[in-house]
Amino acid sequence: MRKKVTLKQLAKELNLSISTVSKSLKNDSEISQKTINRVHELANFYNYKPNALAVSLKSNKTNTIGVLLPEILNHFYAKVLFGIEQEASKEGYKIVTCITNESYEKEVEYVEMLNYSSVDGFILALSKETQMLNKLNHLKDLKRDNVPLMMFDRVSTEVDCDKVIVDDKHASKTAVQHLIKTGCRKIAIISTIFDLSVGRLRLEGAHEEVAANDGVTLVELPINNIELEEKEIESFLKNNEIDAVLGLDETAAAVAINMANKLGYKIPDDISVIGFTDGILSKHSYPKLTTVSQHAEDLGARAARILLDRLLNTSEDNYKTSTEIVKTSLILRDSTN
Amino acid sequence: MRKKVTLKQLAKELNLSISTVSKSLKNDSEISQKTINRVHELANFYNYKPNALAVSLKSNKTNTIGVLLPEILNHFYAKVLFGIEQEASKEGYKIVTCITNESYEKEVEYVEMLNYSSVDGFILALSKETQMLNKLNHLKDLKRDNVPLMMFDRVSTEVDCDKVIVDDKHASKTAVQHLIKTGCRKIAIISTIFDLSVGRLRLEGAHEEVAANDGVTLVELPINNIELEEKEIESFLKNNEIDAVLGLDETAAAVAINMANKLGYKIPDDISVIGFTDGILSKHSYPKLTTVSQHAEDLGARAARILLDRLLNTSEDNYKTSTEIVKTSLILRDSTN
Repeated sequence: MRKKVTLKQLAKELNLSISTVSKSLKNDSEISQKTINRVHELANFYNYKPNALAVSLKSNKTNTIGVLLPEILNHFYAKVLFGIEQEASKEGYKIVTCITNESYEKEVEYVEMLNYSSVDGFILALSKETQMLNKLNHLKDLKRDNVPLMMFDRVSTEVDCDKVIVDDKHASKTAVQHLIKTGCRKIAIISTIFDLSVGRLRLEGAHEEVAANDGVTLVELPINNIELEEKEIESFLKNNEIDAVLGLDETAAAVAINMANKLGYKIPDDISVIGFTDGILSKHSYPKLTTVSQHAEDLGARAARILLDRLLNTSEDNYKTSTEIVKTSLILRDSTN
Repeated sequence: MRKKVTLKQLAKELNLSISTVSKSLKNDSEISQKTINRVHELANFYNYKPNALAVSLKSNKTNTIGVLLPEILNHFYAKVLFGIEQEASKEGYKIVTCITNESYEKEVEYVEMLNYSSVDGFILALSKETQMLNKLNHLKDLKRDNVPLMMFDRVSTEVDCDKVIVDDKHASKTAVQHLIKTGCRKIAIISTIFDLSVGRLRLEGAHEEVAANDGVTLVELPINNIELEEKEIESFLKNNEIDAVLGLDETAAAVAINMANKLGYKIPDDISVIGFTDGILSKHSYPKLTTVSQHAEDLGARAARILLDRLLNTSEDNYKTSTEIVKTSLILRDSTN
């Protein structure tokens, strides 16, 4: 559908060499004003624009960062993207985002597309399928091509690149600590993400903290089918005499609050609830949710900052990569004592 | 940072013409096997890859659609993007997304970048600033370049392109109708989007419906500072004897529910609440929110479908553009009788 006139076509029509046309378009003093005028006239007529990518391929710089997110309906990633965009803007960098929808194949396809085309660097969180298959060559290839890669949140130790991660294990310990400190003794862990690295770390932290406290027990409710989430959580709350819920994802915690309300439990006096991800659900639940904030916007901004520093400091190719741990905070609201 | 060997450099090092190298890489039968082997050897050594964009610029097709969204923290746009991605996948099209963060300047920059680079077509909702400035040349230019454009949700009548919109006015009338039918007489409209085209249409619809019903009145609460939202809504609910709230955006409705809970009002018996956008807040409020669903995923899929049909049917350049209206539904949940 798209029809563009090329430099070559302009040259042919003007009976000039490509180089003369190119120089004329840049008003090069080598070329006579008459020729420059002729070239500009025809270029305007055809609305000729020098192809930005052709230009950028020459300079090897596009001032564009490619971002790959596993999904976009999850508010955490939307907030990270917002943080990335804000930070990149400060340096005049543009952000191009592709969503892998948790698919390994799409992740590979998008990495290749953005790499062969034009981005200066990547910011990426692994898709669920990539984590399960543990196939990472498409990312290792970036290193070989000297394209800086920044992984965040869902990362792999097998890829040598800069990383920004959340101290998920510690975050979860802190959350459980708070529940124990406020008198909770039987804590339920509800999660839809037991099979993701972050989910496993959060579970590990909770177990460690419980093990260190006599008389405190843990029960787990893994949710496999998100459609049945409410029913499962409701009957779980009814049939287990728990006094606290730690939701390893935001929705699990929000649903736990609503089901507790529905069953007539008082929050936080009968059941305390803590969630992960300080997103819109946490802010707009009733009562408002105490939550582990991963500071998604800060995390995105930090990831962008580290990558930008690599891109702006073009001198060294074989830099030593680093992993930065973003501190979480427990934001105390009304769902805990 | 990125270092790529070019066809030209390969040719120079091999003392061959660029054309011979290019043909050798494609195993062209014109070229001797010996030469082909030499070329492949050096190309592998340098990890040479034909530049995908250079290739695509030649064929004038990238099978990529550029999507521009005004913001990403809004769940509506996240869902639209999800719908676009699903539909485009069916045809093997890739989606590249840029977020304008409601900025006119960014919108122009991203449209130009994606246009000059490689996308086959655009799907776009206008940024708030673009709507206010009403500067649309960057979009009119696409028409001139024969790059198909699909606008959705926030559109302009001044740009001749395909559009998919929501019948916002009718949707709002239907919502108010339901409130009146269930006995509400004093309806509050709460909105943070009075200055957007969609916000104005929703308000208009509500006014028309109220005007058609004797004894029903409307009060408006425009929220300018989103930070003060809760306080403003709380004192508004306390000081006005309203029996219904229509939130023109999802958050306004969710906050109204929480503030009504806080003030001890019974929902829906004391106050009925209806919102717009069937997002996560509507599903996870307590009680669950009756809401106008704009079927964001369907809307995204429909927008993608129409654009894909244009792209796949490359024969006609001067097609007649059309505007499709996506029907909304009122999803009845627990916040209304």
